[in-house]
Amino acid sequence: MTTTLITGGTVVTATGRSEADVLVDGETIAAVLAPGSVLLGSDLRSSVDTVVDATGKYVIPGGIDAHTHMELPFGGTNASDTFETGTRAAAWGGTTTIIDFAVQRYGERVQDGLAAWHEKAAGNCAIDYGFHQIIGGVDADSLTAMDSLVDEGISSFKLFMAYPGVFYSDDAQILRAMQKAADTGLLTMMHAENGPAIDVLAEQLVAQGKTDPYYHGIARAWQMEEEATHRAIMLAHLTGAPLYVVHVSAKQAVAQLAAARDAGQNVFGETCPQYLYLSLEEQLGAPGFEGAKWVCSTPLRSREEGHQHSMWQALRTNDLQMVSTDHCPFCMKGQKDLGVGDFRKIPNGIGSVEHRMDLMYQGVVTGQITLERWVELTSTTPARMFGLHGRKGVIAPGADADIVVYDPAGHTSIGIDKTHHMNMDHSAWEGFEIDGHVDTVISRGKVVVDDGAYLGSKGDGRFLKRGLSQYLV
Amino acid sequence: MTTTLITGGTVVTATGRSEADVLVDGETIAAVLAPGSVLLGSDLRSSVDTVVDATGKYVIPGGIDAHTHMELPFGGTNASDTFETGTRAAAWGGTTTIIDFAVQRYGERVQDGLAAWHEKAAGNCAIDYGFHQIIGGVDADSLTAMDSLVDEGISSFKLFMAYPGVFYSDDAQILRAMQKAADTGLLTMMHAENGPAIDVLAEQLVAQGKTDPYYHGIARAWQMEEEATHRAIMLAHLTGAPLYVVHVSAKQAVAQLAAARDAGQNVFGETCPQYLYLSLEEQLGAPGFEGAKWVCSTPLRSREEGHQHSMWQALRTNDLQMVSTDHCPFCMKGQKDLGVGDFRKIPNGIGSVEHRMDLMYQGVVTGQITLERWVELTSTTPARMFGLHGRKGVIAPGADADIVVYDPAGHTSIGIDKTHHMNMDHSAWEGFEIDGHVDTVISRGKVVVDDGAYLGSKGDGRFLKRGLSQYLV
Amino acid sequence: MTTTLITGGTVVTATGRSEADVLVDGETIAAVLAPGSVLLGSDLRSSVDTVVDATGKYVIPGGIDAHTHMELPFGGTNASDTFETGTRAAAWGGTTTIIDFAVQRYGERVQDGLAAWHEKAAGNCAIDYGFHQIIGGVDADSLTAMDSLVDEGISSFKLFMAYPGVFYSDDAQILRAMQKAADTGLLTMMHAENGPAIDVLAEQLVAQGKTDPYYHGIARAWQMEEEATHRAIMLAHLTGAPLYVVHVSAKQAVAQLAAARDAGQNVFGETCPQYLYLSLEEQLGAPGFEGAKWVCSTPLRSREEGHQHSMWQALRTNDLQMVSTDHCPFCMKGQKDLGVGDFRKIPNGIGSVEHRMDLMYQGVVTGQITLERWVELTSTTPARMFGLHGRKGVIAPGADADIVVYDPAGHTSIGIDKTHHMNMDHSAWEGFEIDGHVDTVISRGKVVVDDGAYLGSKGDGRFLKRGLSQYLV
Amino acid sequence: MTTTLITGGTVVTATGRSEADVLVDGETIAAVLAPGSVLLGSDLRSSVDTVVDATGKYVIPGGIDAHTHMELPFGGTNASDTFETGTRAAAWGGTTTIIDFAVQRYGERVQDGLAAWHEKAAGNCAIDYGFHQIIGGVDADSLTAMDSLVDEGISSFKLFMAYPGVFYSDDAQILRAMQKAADTGLLTMMHAENGPAIDVLAEQLVAQGKTDPYYHGIARAWQMEEEATHRAIMLAHLTGAPLYVVHVSAKQAVAQLAAARDAGQNVFGETCPQYLYLSLEEQLGAPGFEGAKWVCSTPLRSREEGHQHSMWQALRTNDLQMVSTDHCPFCMKGQKDLGVGDFRKIPNGIGSVEHRMDLMYQGVVTGQITLERWVELTSTTPARMFGLHGRKGVIAPGADADIVVYDPAGHTSIGIDKTHHMNMDHSAWEGFEIDGHVDTVISRGKVVVDDGAYLGSKGDGRFLKRGLSQYLV
Repeated sequence: MTTTLITGGTVVTATGRSEADVLVDGETIAAVLAPGSVLLGSDLRSSVDTVVDATGKYVIPGGIDAHTHMELPFGGTNASDTFETGTRAAAWGGTTTIIDFAVQRYGERVQDGLAAWHEKAAGNCAIDYGFHQIIGGVDADSLTAMDSLVDEGISSFKLFMAYPGVFYSDDAQILRAMQKAADTGLLTMMHAENGPAIDVLAEQLVAQGKTDPYYHGIARAWQMEEEATHRAIMLAHLTGAPLYVVHVSAKQAVAQLAAARDAGQNVFGETCPQYLYLSLEEQLGAPGFEGAKWVCSTPLRSREEGHQHSMWQALRTNDLQMVSTDHCPFCMKGQKDLGVGDFRKIPNGIGSVEHRMDLMYQGVVTGQITLERWVELTSTTPARMFGLHGRKGVIAPGADADIVVYDPAGHTSIGIDKTHHMNMDHSAWEGFEIDGHVDTVISRGKVVVDDGAYLGSKGDGRFLKRGLSQYLV
Repeated sequence: MTTTLITGGTVVTATGRSEADVLVDGETIAAVLAPGSVLLGSDLRSSVDTVVDATGKYVIPGGIDAHTHMELPFGGTNASDTFETGTRAAAWGGTTTIIDFAVQRYGERVQDGLAAWHEKAAGNCAIDYGFHQIIGGVDADSLTAMDSLVDEGISSFKLFMAYPGVFYSDDAQILRAMQKAADTGLLTMMHAENGPAIDVLAEQLVAQGKTDPYYHGIARAWQMEEEATHRAIMLAHLTGAPLYVVHVSAKQAVAQLAAARDAGQNVFGETCPQYLYLSLEEQLGAPGFEGAKWVCSTPLRSREEGHQHSMWQALRTNDLQMVSTDHCPFCMKGQKDLGVGDFRKIPNGIGSVEHRMDLMYQGVVTGQITLERWVELTSTTPARMFGLHGRKGVIAPGADADIVVYDPAGHTSIGIDKTHHMNMDHSAWEGFEIDGHVDTVISRGKVVVDDGAYLGSKGDGRFLKRGLSQYLV
Repeated sequence: MTTTLITGGTVVTATGRSEADVLVDGETIAAVLAPGSVLLGSDLRSSVDTVVDATGKYVIPGGIDAHTHMELPFGGTNASDTFETGTRAAAWGGTTTIIDFAVQRYGERVQDGLAAWHEKAAGNCAIDYGFHQIIGGVDADSLTAMDSLVDEGISSFKLFMAYPGVFYSDDAQILRAMQKAADTGLLTMMHAENGPAIDVLAEQLVAQGKTDPYYHGIARAWQMEEEATHRAIMLAHLTGAPLYVVHVSAKQAVAQLAAARDAGQNVFGETCPQYLYLSLEEQLGAPGFEGAKWVCSTPLRSREEGHQHSMWQALRTNDLQMVSTDHCPFCMKGQKDLGVGDFRKIPNGIGSVEHRMDLMYQGVVTGQITLERWVELTSTTPARMFGLHGRKGVIAPGADADIVVYDPAGHTSIGIDKTHHMNMDHSAWEGFEIDGHVDTVISRGKVVVDDGAYLGSKGDGRFLKRGLSQYLV
Repeated sequence: MTTTLITGGTVVTATGRSEADVLVDGETIAAVLAPGSVLLGSDLRSSVDTVVDATGKYVIPGGIDAHTHMELPFGGTNASDTFETGTRAAAWGGTTTIIDFAVQRYGERVQDGLAAWHEKAAGNCAIDYGFHQIIGGVDADSLTAMDSLVDEGISSFKLFMAYPGVFYSDDAQILRAMQKAADTGLLTMMHAENGPAIDVLAEQLVAQGKTDPYYHGIARAWQMEEEATHRAIMLAHLTGAPLYVVHVSAKQAVAQLAAARDAGQNVFGETCPQYLYLSLEEQLGAPGFEGAKWVCSTPLRSREEGHQHSMWQALRTNDLQMVSTDHCPFCMKGQKDLGVGDFRKIPNGIGSVEHRMDLMYQGVVTGQITLERWVELTSTTPARMFGLHGRKGVIAPGADADIVVYDPAGHTSIGIDKTHHMNMDHSAWEGFEIDGHVDTVISRGKVVVDDGAYLGSKGDGRFLKRGLSQYLV
């Protein structure tokens, strides 16, 4: 078993920071030590295989991206990152765990969907991975199948209030699934947009010749997100099931979450980097078909209306608890361009799995969040929320040695011709400059990224059986 | 330097728990280790002076009680605990740090007040201690004096919207003091009750012959706390100063805090065990003069109105961030009985410094809060809130070795003839039973309580120069 | 043309009261005069056909019940009051206008539904009547048909978020219908309950053997009303259409209305006497099958939870603007008893059209509302809301002479063997005692009720072509 | 006794409008008649002394301005309108009743203050007038004096949370006065601004050389109004006294009122034309000393922050119930210019009594409010709020014949050289154009303004003994 000592750095946790060294023994953390690594008189530096000098740098738990869609079939094509390319890009960016979504649809068996995703991922991942289960067809069979999900390490599932005819569940289905969740401890994740109403608006826009990517954002009005968020909260209230709303982007939806949380309900929400930095006016409204790069759902929101500001604020106030990417990359050529002339046919998704840690760190630089909150939002809370605490999300003895050495004096330029390892023909983040750098990435004790080199291998990553949420109150 | 190894326990932090051993070297924590304490092949157990077996027990950072009043002159008498007796009782109960209040009043110099409190405490304390500064007379001199408080390690000060003629500041004074706070980084603590209006109500009640302790609670109506809380929030908003409201007891006051927090303002609140467990009807309304035991301000609130329920909920939702005691003990004989026939003359205060950790742990047992939240509310957040993070409030290398071994299989019966070390002739908590027990208390590396014995000495505790709050967003 | 002079009474309006005489000339009000009826020297009393002495009594505009269902086919049977019996009972109770609901269902033409209702009512009514149009099947045809409704004097239509498979519209349909409403000026009325979710709960309760009427109230939980209310508000917000929510019974639904109204949205709500006086525990939970008498939707709510209190309050705060009856009577024998053993099969409805004015006056007696508010809630606002102002809802020259003389010194005992003219085998209001009495009812100039006698005839009432709402801001 | 018949017009009330003629007999309204004025066969037109042709015009109850300060001593000078000039200007503008403020200050007797104001007004007024009582020094004597106010027809009194040392009451005083109000039925009017805090801010601004009128608005920050409004609400809640907040200008203060009203509390608010039309940036921030024209308290608010928009909205939602002027005129020369070099010395006040009806009608023209709401805000509710209903605020038999014929086809240009009858050397409304015109004004049966001529006399107006508020719920 290899031993590694990370010395001289500042270990950052969700609640503070301290000068400390970290000893890795095999795949786990063996100890967190006072600086100097001299313990009861013996200098550990001479006893380990490798010493990583983290002087002046932050030592943080590896990022956990709880919302990715590798190889997702959507809109007649597949997300362009495989588990191999996507997880490698994640590793490059300091993310050492992803939780992807296995898919079940109408008429399909949940077990088959899960098995299919196991097959896609097994042996291909650069980092550890888990699955949420999409239940795209709630019926007697899938409800029964949900009973065994926890045992299989799938402690969360996702429903869609959008996409009628694809993943959509109506309120009767949602109610039944939430009842099941309340019984089993499964955490209900919700895509909260009123799909049936949105589809009417989209159809009308297209009929009016409003077919550009921009109108994707108009059709998916904030009222549709606010409404669905409220509805999901009420159904959760009725059943007693905890609720986790994915990719929150509207400030009015945040207000709904905040009100429910103030009242003591176990309601949570994530946002994504795109809702913090990008906007309806600037990106989605880019000239011509350019905006297609940023077609995702929920959509980018108006900066004039202040949604981005509200998302950052909600991250500070803990009305949103996490930042995931909803990584779902599509190339412009051959994929996004399916929607030329009809925004409804543009595959929905943005690729960000590689950049989340950097983009959120930039929020520390600009004063939007604290350093501690950065770690909490990107790693500690994701681990707790999805039943990985103890193994992931902390730098503590016994935990998996998933560690990132982050250099606040470094710099990262994002762009397709620069640092970009996702399988895409463009970057949604082209031109973004980050005042920090992922120097070293350790995944379960193995240094997989260091000094600008990828040292890992396909298949390094293992499937994570997750426990129940550890974040409930 | 003495070395101690705590083995076999579960280390609990604000964000999770892990099986880990803790190595103490001298006054600080040297390492947190994977269970077994075998590090790179060497067994640490044989190298240390002392091994504490924590098998089956929780290992937590020592409690921090950020609101105590040892020897406070009030209502013509003094709080009955000296720094010696009060801090020793605290240690018995698993609290290893207090932050007490130095007092300045009209016509007095801030420096003199602070010096006087240093004198009272120095050499007498069983555990480490810091001071907040009460500014009871805001004027040009005291405002100038506030400039040097941060340098002296006094990073917070307290104002009173109650007690006209004693500690009361009017809104003009509060505004000036908050402007100073915004300039210096001092955290403003507020006793938020509308004193002038309360005094009218109290006078009228006494004039009507309603002189029993119960009417203390009637005079200090929830509207008076809600109002002052809102006013303090608005003055803080105007000045940009962070605000910390002490001893919150009314659910409507919590609602004011929650609204301000949702809006992103740096507004915080503590509650106390008495507002979680005791009530206007049961305790304050006890027959005869018995209720005087529980005369404190803000007062115990009506259980029928649901305030206690709301306080617990607010602790879960983080609308309240901390639990302190407002420890301010008075004996019934010779002190509380000053108010026979006129509740206004009953010295205000309850003694709880010894029982806070236990009483809050009972909230874990009854499911009101999680184990992690217990540690956060009683130690981690107090440290962050008041500029002690890094030294206090965590089990991390480099931090002071303030550690409590808490036994969830133990039991504690509270009562004047049982476990009671405060200098009082009664207990406000007589008859409370706790399903847990403080087994071992380590203060800066020294075992001061173990196996039912007090092993510390007067003067073990040192003054803590505190930094600025580390909890702001 | 007959002339009638009402002398000596107190004319009550929505904004005040005054001692005044009222001169009726033919079908309309000719003048409102200072008491004494001497005008420019001539005494009108000698010039009129009839003098009604209203000394000591209130002279108010005839009641307008904007929500009735005469002869409604529902649950395999028909509401037991015909237009003849129902409107006569209304007249007995001081109501001189009803607005009933014409029905269109899936696959039916709107025009046909409307024609059918015209046929049911024409020549049969004791008082004037109008129609709202139920659109139970929103599709291209019915949307087109809505274009001509305003011209036909049908300025409002109703959608159902409940009753899937019967009247239910999904959100796409609601959106399209509201867009049509925004275009045409039609007022959207909404039955706001989440039907699909309710049906799941009801099915589960029945499967558990919980088949008593009481479980009707459990299945239709307040969350289902609150949710649908919010959803309707958001869809209305998106489209810019005004919204009128019928039979509001949950305090949380009122809160949703209040929030939207505070934000300036044209959102309105009615409640019904049953939600003010009756409860889940007392009536719906009556022993055996007795509770079936009070099975209606939305259901009676828990008194312990305080909904009734909130409804009265909302009537005072104008968060609810009107009181209608949702009159939909069914006999116990042969109708309600269809649901013995399965509460889902109990026809939904309560008969109240005769008692609304009395029941609401009792709210004046008990201090819940003012005398002026009584008139506003039961007559003036209904007229304004539904485009009848000028003709109905006021005592003003030119308006239809629909006038009630109400005696505050009278008394009314409600009961099947007492004053009861509805076609039912029981009364939902058995035993209610009212401290007032409807003495005289004038409908378009004709005295139809006086001194305990019914003086009108079948067919007195005419169809009212209504204009657009006059209540919007 | 003179008789007058107003024919052909549209009578507008708070709840609707109707074509109707109005017969005036002596000082009161004798009848409201169907158009044509033929009653039971006789044509009234030939029987009256005067016929006013109102064809195509609105016939409305005369305006009631419930907040004026004629001859008010303030800041070392007196408001420039006497009761003679001010009430004549009011009449010109369609206002037929004012309620002015008698003043009591520290050390003065309430009775003396009231007597002094009676003396100023008696025999000098063009229109009817009443008094509120300012209690500027709440003490045992003034509290006792309040007992007799209702008998003297003074059913409301005003307290100030601003102006320490002048009119200011502290919270203890407010509490005692509100208790008195709850006992006697007096309505408490409140100037809600935190004076002590404002004075600190103002002093600091002046010390920084920020002495221009603009800084008057900066010193009186919205937080200070919001805070005081909330405090007043809470003190009112505690005592059970109804509350009326004067000159509301901050949207956040409106939110406080709305929340209290939603909760059922008897809390009311007025705004003034200046808060609807004028702003901090445009008027108060005018170059040089020009802004002094618009120095009033509460101050003009920022248009960028949207306060004006919120005031209009609150008038629509009934979160504000009335529009008064706070008429308190000062000339620039010799009065306003006292504050050159120190905005604190600028007499506070704007003259608007002449223009309120026109300015609010313009809100009808621009679609901000309905025609009915115009009448309600300016006449009907003021009468109800302040105990004048029955005599004032309606066009109803028996009411005082205070009637305005308003021509929607007319036009009014406001300006010092145009229509301006107030005793000022400038107009705060210079250049405002109104799409309507006050054609005829009848005050207690006498035509005082007609066809651009003033036909009234000094002393036409009489003192109004007012009853208790008729607007409470």
